[in-house]
Amino acid sequence: MALIVQKYGGTSVKDTDRIKSVAEHVAQTAEAGNDLIVVVSAPAGFTDDLTSRAARISADPSPREMDMLLSTGEQISIALLAMALQELGHDAISLTGGQMRIFTDRSHTKARIQYIDLDRVKDELGAGRIIIVAGFQGRTQEHEITTLGRGGSDTTAVAIAAALSADLCEIYTDVDGIYTADPRVVKNPSKLSKISYDEMLELASLGAKVLHPRSVEMAKTHDVPLAVRSSYETEKGGTLVVKKEALEKEYPVTGIACDQNTAEIIIYGVDDRPGIAADIFTALADENVNVDLIIQSGVQNAKNDIAFTVPKNELKKTRRIINSLKDQIMYESVSFDDNVMKISAVGSGMVTGRGIAASMFRVFYENGVNIDMIGTSEIKISCIIRDEEGLKEKLMQALHDEFGLDSIGENDACFEE
Amino acid sequence: MALIVQKYGGTSVKDTDRIKSVAEHVAQTAEAGNDLIVVVSAPAGFTDDLTSRAARISADPSPREMDMLLSTGEQISIALLAMALQELGHDAISLTGGQMRIFTDRSHTKARIQYIDLDRVKDELGAGRIIIVAGFQGRTQEHEITTLGRGGSDTTAVAIAAALSADLCEIYTDVDGIYTADPRVVKNPSKLSKISYDEMLELASLGAKVLHPRSVEMAKTHDVPLAVRSSYETEKGGTLVVKKEALEKEYPVTGIACDQNTAEIIIYGVDDRPGIAADIFTALADENVNVDLIIQSGVQNAKNDIAFTVPKNELKKTRRIINSLKDQIMYESVSFDDNVMKISAVGSGMVTGRGIAASMFRVFYENGVNIDMIGTSEIKISCIIRDEEGLKEKLMQALHDEFGLDSIGENDACFEE
Repeated sequence: MALIVQKYGGTSVKDTDRIKSVAEHVAQTAEAGNDLIVVVSAPAGFTDDLTSRAARISADPSPREMDMLLSTGEQISIALLAMALQELGHDAISLTGGQMRIFTDRSHTKARIQYIDLDRVKDELGAGRIIIVAGFQGRTQEHEITTLGRGGSDTTAVAIAAALSADLCEIYTDVDGIYTADPRVVKNPSKLSKISYDEMLELASLGAKVLHPRSVEMAKTHDVPLAVRSSYETEKGGTLVVKKEALEKEYPVTGIACDQNTAEIIIYGVDDRPGIAADIFTALADENVNVDLIIQSGVQNAKNDIAFTVPKNELKKTRRIINSLKDQIMYESVSFDDNVMKISAVGSGMVTGRGIAASMFRVFYENGVNIDMIGTSEIKISCIIRDEEGLKEKLMQALHDEFGLDSIGENDACFEE
Repeated sequence: MALIVQKYGGTSVKDTDRIKSVAEHVAQTAEAGNDLIVVVSAPAGFTDDLTSRAARISADPSPREMDMLLSTGEQISIALLAMALQELGHDAISLTGGQMRIFTDRSHTKARIQYIDLDRVKDELGAGRIIIVAGFQGRTQEHEITTLGRGGSDTTAVAIAAALSADLCEIYTDVDGIYTADPRVVKNPSKLSKISYDEMLELASLGAKVLHPRSVEMAKTHDVPLAVRSSYETEKGGTLVVKKEALEKEYPVTGIACDQNTAEIIIYGVDDRPGIAADIFTALADENVNVDLIIQSGVQNAKNDIAFTVPKNELKKTRRIINSLKDQIMYESVSFDDNVMKISAVGSGMVTGRGIAASMFRVFYENGVNIDMIGTSEIKISCIIRDEEGLKEKLMQALHDEFGLDSIGENDACFEE
């Protein structure tokens, strides 16, 4: 008998028919003799509806009251799913984040989980109940309701799986696994049967639609075996996210990702003295700008160029901050460009597989594309290039072909529980 | 400075425009220097929508899960109202029933309030905050969410007012007070500036649309001054519900009510021996039948007739119970009639005002109406008569005229705070 944590997203519980399907799916896992905790999101669209109601009342509503408001969505889902399971003859009980005793800090709308008190969970599991937990939410010591922000329900599921040392955490979604590239962009992507936590993190722009990086990071830290599966399929396929050593085989490249939500800032002619970079990025961090790639060119005439990227919707804020630093940093000029994109090749075997970068750059060259910035890690090469109509599709397909990703999954043994 | 509890119903918070109006109304009371606790219902229609979703999943959903589900409605209202008040520059905080520490028993969907722990409320009031409380809900010692059932939000408001010895509990609704008869039935009803708790209870069929009897009873027990006011009017009018001795003047009759949701059962030829009536009404009580009037005729040949009334929708259940008692009670026959209605005249001064019953019966006689059953209390006379097209309107108008109710309010000093 295994202890399994399952998570179902908003589209899986958006109406009563879907909720009944999820209940049947959950019931099957329970009938196979597993202990089960099921985490659910708010019905699709519900949170957006509440958010727009709040927006009609206040341009800047209090985070505490937003949490009070938005936590209702998951509460509706858990009650209805518990009813549906009871209707199938299963003993199920719904728990809010507070009742589940998921304790968080006091950062409303973006709370971090501090710990989970397992007393009640163990009681309910001991009584043979299927526990249905509201994702995305927790409570403070002061009985305040908090929400976890982006990726919240995935994070709830992984946190519970970690706290209980669950045998598996299954993330059910509307895709059937992680692919070597976005199937809407590339013609013949392969589904990966396994992927490492690190690769998954680097493939964020693919994975964000499936698995939030925050939950992957938590799973990695606590060694939680994570499976991404389709809620529409009954057979257990999907992709398993595991530690690197659990992978049977490493590929130099396992995925190609493209992130169009990126903007490039280049600060020209910065003095080459200590502390300048710290000043710039501290100013950005203070205002919560999410800086991605950072590159500093070599020194010419005691002057540096510093380039970095931010999400497109943070460019306006970034522009204000950098302009305000003009007197302090004494740079010569600055350019802001949001007509760029980031294309990345990711793979655990990249370190040992030489020539990957060279192959990638040659693909760009053959397509007449200049590279603005290059960033690398042990398992990733990212290039910032101009974004123009059709270029993303063309380059991703070319890279996918270059690295032979259309047949990568075939040699893998499909993951079996 | 007074401590005031206000309650706003579902139509008052059904959309963001209404919520903003309520916020302005609340703000005015706060700006007049009062401490304020505001109780709100779920947005109109929301609870019905959730109930029908639950019905699509289960014909008999678990009461615990229904409470989990339905308590979300009020939570949405309180969050949005708190935001609207903050937007007006007021320090407001929303509290769920659990956060308000309204402790109830474990009877899900019809919980009774046991006590309210005032620690947090006092802290929040002390900090100068307007407290916005979710009506209709509480919690058990075990952190389970409960709802209070029918009339729940009114009951929440009165319970809080009682616990805090508030100076006034204002129930805001879409009518502007209690009338001597239903304005949709009688042509020239008077608005009562004051009414006693007992009269209000007897006028349940009028009051249920405005004020739930359960909350009136609690207000009476704890001497909570209760005001019924329109949320659409800025001036403080309405009807004050008070103790009898607080009334400046007693009228023999202050209101005429008609309840068409009634069915009549007559059991003929019951043995005149002790315990028979107890057997009948215990059997009905065991199945939660709400028996209203009970009349037992005099003994003829050692046989009694016993007549009583129940709500129309409980007639089927009642018929089954009475039929099943045939062997035990050995009655001769029984009749069930749901084509009846109950017309009542209510007034605190009825005891001293002789001839009220006679006047009432004469009105029926003059209109050619037979009286099936008569029930009286110190402040009420009720008659069960046949229900036929137009008869209700004709008789209520005739009784309203007979007792001069069109001018009853004029001599009253309008209630001033």
